[in-house]
Amino acid sequence: MSNTKGYAAYSSSEELKPFDFDRREMGPKDVKVEIDYCGVCHSDIHTAHNDWGMSEYPIVPGHEIIGHVTAIGANVSKFKEGDLVGVGCLVDSCGECPSCKDDLEQFCFNGMVMTYGSPDPVMGGVTHGGYSTQIVVTEDFVLKVSEKLDTKKVAPLLCAGITTYSPLKHWKVGKGQKVGIIGLGGLGHMGVKFAAAMGAEVVMITTSPEKGEDAKRLGAKDVLISKDTEEMAAHAGTFDLLLNTIPVEHDLNPYLPLLKVDKTMIVVGATPVQLHSMGLVFGRKSIAGSLIGGLKETQEMMDFCAEHNIVSDVEMINLEDINKAWERVMKADVKYRFVIDMKSFR
Amino acid sequence: MSNTKGYAAYSSSEELKPFDFDRREMGPKDVKVEIDYCGVCHSDIHTAHNDWGMSEYPIVPGHEIIGHVTAIGANVSKFKEGDLVGVGCLVDSCGECPSCKDDLEQFCFNGMVMTYGSPDPVMGGVTHGGYSTQIVVTEDFVLKVSEKLDTKKVAPLLCAGITTYSPLKHWKVGKGQKVGIIGLGGLGHMGVKFAAAMGAEVVMITTSPEKGEDAKRLGAKDVLISKDTEEMAAHAGTFDLLLNTIPVEHDLNPYLPLLKVDKTMIVVGATPVQLHSMGLVFGRKSIAGSLIGGLKETQEMMDFCAEHNIVSDVEMINLEDINKAWERVMKADVKYRFVIDMKSFR
Repeated sequence: MSNTKGYAAYSSSEELKPFDFDRREMGPKDVKVEIDYCGVCHSDIHTAHNDWGMSEYPIVPGHEIIGHVTAIGANVSKFKEGDLVGVGCLVDSCGECPSCKDDLEQFCFNGMVMTYGSPDPVMGGVTHGGYSTQIVVTEDFVLKVSEKLDTKKVAPLLCAGITTYSPLKHWKVGKGQKVGIIGLGGLGHMGVKFAAAMGAEVVMITTSPEKGEDAKRLGAKDVLISKDTEEMAAHAGTFDLLLNTIPVEHDLNPYLPLLKVDKTMIVVGATPVQLHSMGLVFGRKSIAGSLIGGLKETQEMMDFCAEHNIVSDVEMINLEDINKAWERVMKADVKYRFVIDMKSFR
Repeated sequence: MSNTKGYAAYSSSEELKPFDFDRREMGPKDVKVEIDYCGVCHSDIHTAHNDWGMSEYPIVPGHEIIGHVTAIGANVSKFKEGDLVGVGCLVDSCGECPSCKDDLEQFCFNGMVMTYGSPDPVMGGVTHGGYSTQIVVTEDFVLKVSEKLDTKKVAPLLCAGITTYSPLKHWKVGKGQKVGIIGLGGLGHMGVKFAAAMGAEVVMITTSPEKGEDAKRLGAKDVLISKDTEEMAAHAGTFDLLLNTIPVEHDLNPYLPLLKVDKTMIVVGATPVQLHSMGLVFGRKSIAGSLIGGLKETQEMMDFCAEHNIVSDVEMINLEDINKAWERVMKADVKYRFVIDMKSFR
């Protein structure tokens, strides 16, 4: 008997298909969540297609989960039945290593347990994510969600949101700074909203002039077309930070001259890049990586969103339509995130 | 009538040949230096061979200059005749821009005037460097040199020294840190000496096992052979800083796993590199560039060397032998820096 319905990838080449499976028995610190919404992240597709060479099948994607608590273990103290909650990219970590003690569970020395596709320490096989009706998660990896926001638009905050919020916060974005967001997709549109809410002057840097108007609606003050070498030269040496959200192989070199002396470009995509160190050496510039965020910071981001009324721009779908949605994600044809309405699937 | 004798590159393909030329008339803030020693830097060769596509001929290389003051202008306050002094990679900058005001003249917004190969604002043509009998430099770009050190071994501090001292200082190397120096050449051997003198545990990271003993003599506690994947894995996640001195195109990816979370690899070579951003994203790691140092920091470095008795390991040559020396530099066949004895050329 299976207690959970979902959709899974059965191999790297097939479409997602229905998959019934068991969630684990409730432990004393566990929270059971009935899933209302799940965002569709490009990582879901990379994992299903085994683009990173680590996938084990079948696999249920989904790590932007919003739902309601339907049961709690005996020792759960932070949540009660009926609470609106979120589950993001992580569902567990060792809790003991220096990274975990620093609230950087995403860098756990013993390996974070990702919401899907990680070895499942309880059930065996791999963990299964949010393209499903319910999930059981230890309470320290469950997030509180404000009732103030439009809940279906909150789901993408759990990955697209924290992936952009964390570096902007870590590199201390604020008033008086000029911040460039490179690429306007699921991540980029959140980067614009956050950097603007933090008080920075935001410039959308894109190859696509037609995205300019939308970038301004999201909070960008200016739009810089990266193919326009004259315009790029006019902005040289003026940026305090660049957040590069480009998810595919690309050339970093044209962006480095935009930075002021001693400033940083953050990359959040995991991809090969072209680089000549000349662009770093002149001006003592840096390129840094950033990966989602720890649980404490993710909760802080959720609270920041409630305070500043920040949500994602989403397009709702039913779970049955996931394969069509993925095709559109692969063509970057979504503004700016698909969210699955799981209520349609119960 | 020419007042200065030297050796110059007349084109990108010829050997250096004798070249007589005029130094400028003394201005009120100028210091005239009779050159005793000049270090041989790989940049000299890159510039003479026009590897960076910016060279104008004839050009007199040399930016690791040690000499004695033979005359001073009416308004010179820091130097007197007979003083032992140094001239490094820069001989002027605007003095007005934010970088100059921050003591980062190497990033002058209006373009630093390099010791050789820069447009010469006084004489026209390009500036001429230290492969010559004398030089005239405004006093703010002249460095005081301690009489305590073996003078002929001091010359390479002006480029190889400051290039490695500056990032180690900027990234706050000190006791309790494990610092990796990648590559054992003119820069690397100074990096080992400085990092050890700053109190760090230094590991020489090299492709050449035969360099191990020498690295330890210079101050390294350990030697890590970068081709040995098992040894590299054993050091994963243990370094507080990496200083990468490799001067040719190479792959950065194998080094990034060595860094702890949130730590940085500094590159000081200007070269194409291979990079996959995955290595930065996991662990929020950075790659940063660094270029020589400002005048204030270069003087600080010279004083640090006097205090800690730090000089370069050098091999002395006469100016007539420069072409043979360059051939050996191109084969990395020098431990670790050639210095021209200009006294032999007067």
